[in-house]
Amino acid sequence: MSERVLLAHGNGGRYMRELIDEVFAAAFGDQAPDTRCDAAALPPVDGTLMLTTDGFTVQPLEFPGGDLGSLALHGSVNDLAVSGAEPRWLTLAVVLEEGLEIVRLKRLVASFAAAARAAGARVMAGDTKVVPRGQGGGAYFSVSAIGVQARPGLGADRIEPGDALLVSGPVGDHGIAVMLAREDFELRGEIVSDCASVLPLCRALWPLPGLRFLRDPTRGGLATVANEIVQACGRGLRLFETALPVRDGTRSVCEMLGYDPLYLACEGRVVAVVAADQADAALARWRVLDGGRDAAIVGRIEGGAPRVVLQTAICGERVLDELEDDPLPRIC
Amino acid sequence: MSERVLLAHGNGGRYMRELIDEVFAAAFGDQAPDTRCDAAALPPVDGTLMLTTDGFTVQPLEFPGGDLGSLALHGSVNDLAVSGAEPRWLTLAVVLEEGLEIVRLKRLVASFAAAARAAGARVMAGDTKVVPRGQGGGAYFSVSAIGVQARPGLGADRIEPGDALLVSGPVGDHGIAVMLAREDFELRGEIVSDCASVLPLCRALWPLPGLRFLRDPTRGGLATVANEIVQACGRGLRLFETALPVRDGTRSVCEMLGYDPLYLACEGRVVAVVAADQADAALARWRVLDGGRDAAIVGRIEGGAPRVVLQTAICGERVLDELEDDPLPRIC
Repeated sequence: MSERVLLAHGNGGRYMRELIDEVFAAAFGDQAPDTRCDAAALPPVDGTLMLTTDGFTVQPLEFPGGDLGSLALHGSVNDLAVSGAEPRWLTLAVVLEEGLEIVRLKRLVASFAAAARAAGARVMAGDTKVVPRGQGGGAYFSVSAIGVQARPGLGADRIEPGDALLVSGPVGDHGIAVMLAREDFELRGEIVSDCASVLPLCRALWPLPGLRFLRDPTRGGLATVANEIVQACGRGLRLFETALPVRDGTRSVCEMLGYDPLYLACEGRVVAVVAADQADAALARWRVLDGGRDAAIVGRIEGGAPRVVLQTAICGERVLDELEDDPLPRIC
Repeated sequence: MSERVLLAHGNGGRYMRELIDEVFAAAFGDQAPDTRCDAAALPPVDGTLMLTTDGFTVQPLEFPGGDLGSLALHGSVNDLAVSGAEPRWLTLAVVLEEGLEIVRLKRLVASFAAAARAAGARVMAGDTKVVPRGQGGGAYFSVSAIGVQARPGLGADRIEPGDALLVSGPVGDHGIAVMLAREDFELRGEIVSDCASVLPLCRALWPLPGLRFLRDPTRGGLATVANEIVQACGRGLRLFETALPVRDGTRSVCEMLGYDPLYLACEGRVVAVVAADQADAALARWRVLDGGRDAAIVGRIEGGAPRVVLQTAICGERVLDELEDDPLPRIC
């Protein structure tokens, strides 16, 4: 097999079959989809199926703490988890750019496969296309994920004044880690992406009857989720700056480059809205988990106009608006 | 709204919301997915669910007889149809290149939406990413499709010696239409892509107990499907050159450019393998349909080695091998 992806790897013939066998089927092993079928039959399940999709275009393809493969898997599984569903089945459609190194592609696919196995989800259908050099960023992954609903009744429309807003860990690490991994930034740091499955964090809160809403603060970060919440529930939200977990390294880089960590993407954090009397119980459930040690109660739903107010350390107030134009280099 | 796609359309904020509302939600109308959710609940169904995925990277984005939108929808629905399933639900993940004209994007999405409606399939989840100028071919669509099995028991392992091979119409039109639509070809022609749903053609054959196998000859064309058949069933296949439907215009361009129409992609044709005693019935069922007027019985499964032999007009024989290196400009 050649060392790089060729246009011929996309032509439907022998080269494509070799690519699929040696890269994809090899990585998925006994969990590999049947490549001879146009569509796969799903085993029967009890319960409501939930469906989501996401495209992944991160640059660079590999960064401290993750890569395109793990990001694609976690991003898809996390969308199911915050919707109250256990992931079951996946599809993976990849667009490869001519010239991509096969060993790098193997690493990305292995990373996706390992994360899928850990999440208990199986790829049932896949597709590979190759685009000419200069028409892709190395590789783009598109994933659809199907899960079985385990916790119904979540939604921003359930949110009430007095509810608490929790975040499962420090915000902004993924955004900064990816930016620093780029050649166009001179800075180098120790910051590692938070890229991870939030399934354990979500499962931990599903049993709480006071759980109203879960979301992973990806593109646009915590501030964007906060704005989605106030738009959807029609109430105000007050965030407490002193309570917001941000790592020192991430904060330093943000100050140097002029970014607000509240608008930076996380890929392994969850925002939860919980009835006030169960906020401490929710926090305790998170803090015993690896991914939730630095969890915090960071805000409160209020009456009044649907806007997000940040209460600063010196008790000033700042409105956190929805993102307008791009405030930061594209990372996803 | 701006006239072209901006990087800010991918940032998760107000620009992205406007793009989704004004382009995607507008095109899907009352069939639009709920953009406030991370995952959509699927209505309950009886029967086995079938799942498929496909990525679409056609250049140019619009060509005689179709465009990226209709191609993406038909390609996905057709994979379900040849698997014996009625399409129900879809996901659509788009990667847009900075600079794409919004009016063109609207045409592509409208085309996808119209074809989805015609096929009785609904988009339940979507995603939009924007990549910088020079990292995408304008737009890439990735679609996953879920259907309900209507005709079980199809598969190349059911094929037996003596079975007939049918094709639903002329081959190679899509491949030639797309190539001629490119600026890098000086030729202009009247050739129109066959891009269409093959669901009516498949439904017409599902009731036949002698139906063994269906497939749409996309990448790699009829010759590639023929090779997949012989590899999967372990038998030989004889194709009759004089019976193979190829339009005069397509044949002329192929002769001029040195391509074999048997290796060119179709996007609205079906290959069927049917028990010999039901081949005429299958042909009759196809010929009364708009998409099947030029259907023909073009081959026969034989004993012997698993290879594809083309019996030529003068009763010579030529082995049709699996595609090796790329014999033609990339079109998908």
